[in-house]
Formats: sequence, structure tokens, C-alpha cells
Amino acid sequence: MKGKILKAYKRDHVHSYASGAYATMELLKNNPGIVEAVYIHSKYTGKEDIGKLCRDNDVPVLYNDRAFERINQKENSYVLGVFCKYTCRLLPDRPHIVLVNPGDMGNLGTIIRTMAGMNIPDLAVIEPAADIFHPKTVRASMGSLFHIRFQCFQSFEAYREAFPGHACYPFTPDGETLLNWDNCPRIRLFSLLFGNESTGLPDCCKLAGPGIRIWQSPLVDSLNLAVAAGIGMYIFACKNELIPLCDGYPF
Amino acid sequence: MKGKILKAYKRDHVHSYASGAYATMELLKNNPGIVEAVYIHSKYTGKEDIGKLCRDNDVPVLYNDRAFERINQKENSYVLGVFCKYTCRLLPDRPHIVLVNPGDMGNLGTIIRTMAGMNIPDLAVIEPAADIFHPKTVRASMGSLFHIRFQCFQSFEAYREAFPGHACYPFTPDGETLLNWDNCPRIRLFSLLFGNESTGLPDCCKLAGPGIRIWQSPLVDSLNLAVAAGIGMYIFACKNELIPLCDGYPF
Repeated sequence: MKGKILKAYKRDHVHSYASGAYATMELLKNNPGIVEAVYIHSKYTGKEDIGKLCRDNDVPVLYNDRAFERINQKENSYVLGVFCKYTCRLLPDRPHIVLVNPGDMGNLGTIIRTMAGMNIPDLAVIEPAADIFHPKTVRASMGSLFHIRFQCFQSFEAYREAFPGHACYPFTPDGETLLNWDNCPRIRLFSLLFGNESTGLPDCCKLAGPGIRIWQSPLVDSLNLAVAAGIGMYIFACKNELIPLCDGYPF
Repeated sequence: MKGKILKAYKRDHVHSYASGAYATMELLKNNPGIVEAVYIHSKYTGKEDIGKLCRDNDVPVLYNDRAFERINQKENSYVLGVFCKYTCRLLPDRPHIVLVNPGDMGNLGTIIRTMAGMNIPDLAVIEPAADIFHPKTVRASMGSLFHIRFQCFQSFEAYREAFPGHACYPFTPDGETLLNWDNCPRIRLFSLLFGNESTGLPDCCKLAGPGIRIWQSPLVDSLNLAVAAGIGMYIFACKNELIPLCDGYPF
């Protein structure tokens, strides 16, 4: 089948794209029901058995190089998974990552990838925020978007009302506690709060719990958001046994 | 003064650009001697006193909106610092970060920013590698490039010959030691080795010392390079007292 020329992505579309073989495989393996079609370019030479996965899940495979024209603006990808946007709900009995007004799709996707890697797969996004379904976000997540649960909230207050039992830890350069292994809280239901790349966390979030600080030299204004979130998640996940401290422990 | 229309950056040029007011300020404060000129766009409304810093350092300030045309391809920046590329040498008595064939300028710049933030300001880059002077790298570093020392090497062997006294720790998903607070080595002269985003570390690097692994769920193929490097640096820096574990300690 040829399929049609795909439209460039827009936020108000009902569809988005997973671009690249790896992200498309993650999409097909984790949520085949939302996949409308997979496009494969004649230059694709990868060894992934995308065709079989599509057939097994009744997903049409389309061969049409022109379909890629409006999608591949910068990076060349030779596999595209077209999927319907969807909603999910956070689990109330799991720790959460809360991104307050994240502005950069690359950071948002990278944080999602780290969340999947650190066994903290529940993400609250406080709007306004970068588009979680944008192909750039999906790509930066390396398809990890399809491994996590996420929920968008109009305000931080709306998130707090939905999950009042979580202990909030705002990460901020002026937080009282300089995070290390010893003082990292041991607690089952935590929410780690990270703010916007330029403006940080708003006051309402800073007051939601004890402020946590990752040490940084005065030479830098701040750490990159995805790096700071990665360090915070790693320490909280280790301390709370979401990931093993050594091989075989605690799993 | 008007100045000329700037050429789009190329790797073989002797000049590069720091784009944005923040990176340009870092350039002017840390290495004013290499700055050829600073261009300010008529739309610039920032409050940084770039003009004064330029005058104090005999750097010409040029007002010419057309100069920005070929430089601003995607992001709009209204301040550009034109600088001469330079070389530096790593300190032999400080720990090093060793990036083996880093492929992405965003990751390279983000790692440089983290290095400045974690007090590990010596970077060895093993070629082939992303261009450390590319405006995208400078931008991702938020101007931290001008805070660190870096040196490019033709091969990992050339780096080892230059710094034979450093203990190498290759970070790799199949490393023997699952990094945590307790087992992180205490050692003054360490080199943390990180490989390419797609291909990881070559065998010669994996054999250069005990392999270190950051835990990751089987759901992800790997962590983002800058995130993994950030976690590794943070733990090594804390454990070896390059950064304080708590306020006032060890400084």
C-alpha cells in the first residue's frame, strides 16, 4: 500500500508520529492498538522485524517515500509510526515526577527516558508545557513515552487535589536540603517537582514541601533540567529501592 | 560601528560564535582576549551590561541586524560574541572527563555545563567527535565552555600516554560495578570515560579500568549520554569531595 503524504505535525492534530525504527518498535510493542500505520522508506536498511510486528497487530505497513517529505525536516528517519494520541492516568500508589511548565521538548523527552530507566514511570505535566506528543518529544524519549503513564494538569493545585497523599519535594537552587545519599528521604509516595528551564518553580510549588538542592558551582547559573532531574531521580530511586543498589538487591 | 554580515559557521573557520547574552557574558568575563567583536541586535532588550564589559576589554560593539541573518537559523538570539578558537591543556593533577567520540553537540555542550557545575573542569575529547567550538555546542554549554579546560586527542591511546597516572573508569551498560554511594571509588586522579551515543565505548576503553554501570531498567536501551554522565559525575564528585556533601563541608 502507498498511503498518503503525511501532514507536518501540529499540536491540535489527533495523530502524531514516532520517528525512527527504535521508537516505532517501542510503540508497536507497548501500545499497538493506537497505531494507525507504519511507513517504511525505501532507504530503510535496519534489521528490526517491523513488518512482522505490524502484521501480528493488524497494523498496515505503507511504502511511500513521499510520505516522509513533510515530516523529516532535520533528521532523516526511514521509519514512521503514525499513532492516535491517547490519555492515561497516573497510579495513585506510585511515586510521581511533576514537571511544572517544562518548555523544551528535548528535555521533556529525555526526562521521560530517564523515568522509564529509573522505574519511576508516572509523570504529571503542569500546563502550559511543551507538547508531550510532539514527534521531537517522542524522539528524545527514544520511544519511552510508550512505557510511562502521564497526565496533564491545568495547574499545580489541580495535581495536588488529585493526589493529596504524595509528599512533594520541590527541586530548586535555593532549597534547604543539599541532596546526598544520607539525607535523601525514605518515603513510599514522593513527588519530585522540577520547574521551567528559564524561570524555575513558581512559589506555590516551592512551598509544597521541603526544598531540595543539587549542589552546583557558582560558575553555572543552573544545571540542565534533564541532568538535574536525572540526578534527583537516581538518588531517590536508589534510596527508596525502586532500583537496586547492587546486583541482586532488592530484586 | 556596523560590522559585516557574518558567515555561517564552519568547522574549519578560525572563528566561532557565542550566541545569546548569557553565553556572550561568560565569554567576555572569562576570556576577553579572544573576543573579536560583539554584535547586538536592535531587538535586544536584556539588562546585562554587555556594552560596559566590552568597553572595559577593548572589544568593539557592533549594531547590525543583518549580521545575524546567516547565524540565527532556528533560535533567535540578539547578542553574538565572535571569538577566535583557542587551545588549552588539561591539568595533570586534576580528575578528567573523557568523552570518546561524542556525536551530538547538544550532549557535548550539556556535559560541559555539568562539568563546570560539578567542579570537574578538565575534558579530554577523543576524535572523531562533535565540534566543541560549534555555536550549538557553545549554546548547549550555556557558555560553560569558557570555564573549562579541554584537549582533543586523535586516539584514546594518545590520551593515556599523555596522562598515564589517571585511573580510568569506563562507564558501560555491561560494567561490573553497579555504581552507588558506597562502592564509588575514592581516588584523587580519576578519568571517567563515556562513549558515543549509538555505539558506546570501544573495547580498548572498556579494558582501561574497572567498568562502571549506572542501573537502568530493561525498558530502555540506554540512558541519555548527558544524563548518565551527570549521574556519574555527581557521585564521583561527592565521594571525592570535589563538591560538598552538605552545606559548609568540606569547604
